[in-house]
Amino acid sequence: MRGIEGEQVLLRLIVSESRYEAGQPLFRAILELLRKEGVAGTTVLKGIAGFGHDRDIHTIDIEVASLGLPLVIEVVDTPEHVERVLGKLEPLLAGAVVMLERAHVIRYTNSATG
Amino acid sequence: MRGIEGEQVLLRLIVSESRYEAGQPLFRAILELLRKEGVAGTTVLKGIAGFGHDRDIHTIDIEVASLGLPLVIEVVDTPEHVERVLGKLEPLLAGAVVMLERAHVIRYTNSATG
Amino acid sequence: MRGIEGEQVLLRLIVSESRYEAGQPLFRAILELLRKEGVAGTTVLKGIAGFGHDRDIHTIDIEVASLGLPLVIEVVDTPEHVERVLGKLEPLLAGAVVMLERAHVIRYTNSATG
Repeated sequence: MRGIEGEQVLLRLIVSESRYEAGQPLFRAILELLRKEGVAGTTVLKGIAGFGHDRDIHTIDIEVASLGLPLVIEVVDTPEHVERVLGKLEPLLAGAVVMLERAHVIRYTNSATG
Repeated sequence: MRGIEGEQVLLRLIVSESRYEAGQPLFRAILELLRKEGVAGTTVLKGIAGFGHDRDIHTIDIEVASLGLPLVIEVVDTPEHVERVLGKLEPLLAGAVVMLERAHVIRYTNSATG
Repeated sequence: MRGIEGEQVLLRLIVSESRYEAGQPLFRAILELLRKEGVAGTTVLKGIAGFGHDRDIHTIDIEVASLGLPLVIEVVDTPEHVERVLGKLEPLLAGAVVMLERAHVIRYTNSATG
């Protein structure tokens, strides 16, 4: 893994889990692309409720409305790498929320592989 | 949906899932208010463990202690809108953690509804 | 609970749930230490997918690969307190991703315990 200590970027993509892209869940297509592009690290969190595109509240415990729960895909990497990856991600991001935050990475090491 | 590109605010509310307000879970009362106020987008994440108000660790896999797991309610919107909504939320937020972070929103579109 | 309003720090640790430390899950060892050190608040979120140390995508719905899902441990406290706690956490953080973000805490109160 690349070391990416210092002032970096936390990229957050919010997509619906019910969106598909070419027959597979959109978030998987995004994960595959992120891995292929070699981003330093990615975490996917699943929301239990939320709203965004529409005015319906999606929630996990009302069965009929449990489609479309939000997924938060977090990527941490250098500003340059995030910028480049965003260009590649663009065709997948219609309807997604895309946010950038500054993050100070103070450790990003792996004792096993350096 | 309103477009909210540019420098915006990520509002994060951390509340206990076991809190109720007027007979319904507090987080639902908050979600309803956020929707009524027309915030651009909201995501609710559920923690598997945490502590805050008290010194007990709440965790999902010790059954007896699995009450009071934290919920993270994330709202992204303009600084002005977040400010206004916070005023309305105030009666619901006793005991909650309320954080504001800056977020650069580079895309917030919906191909379907613009 | 200490009041920590104002400009504070959001510390985020990303660790694998499958890592153990002295016979217990690493995240629990971290939680115990955080509580002992008296941090203001901690939330643990569990990812459904992610990658970091290696190039394998870990995901919750491919059973064989559901080990090693990421946990995001979030801590909010003053810069000084976070700095001190990080020193204590250091022996536990090999391989972890450690990020610091600025967060403006506008409320951190508990009507019950002040």
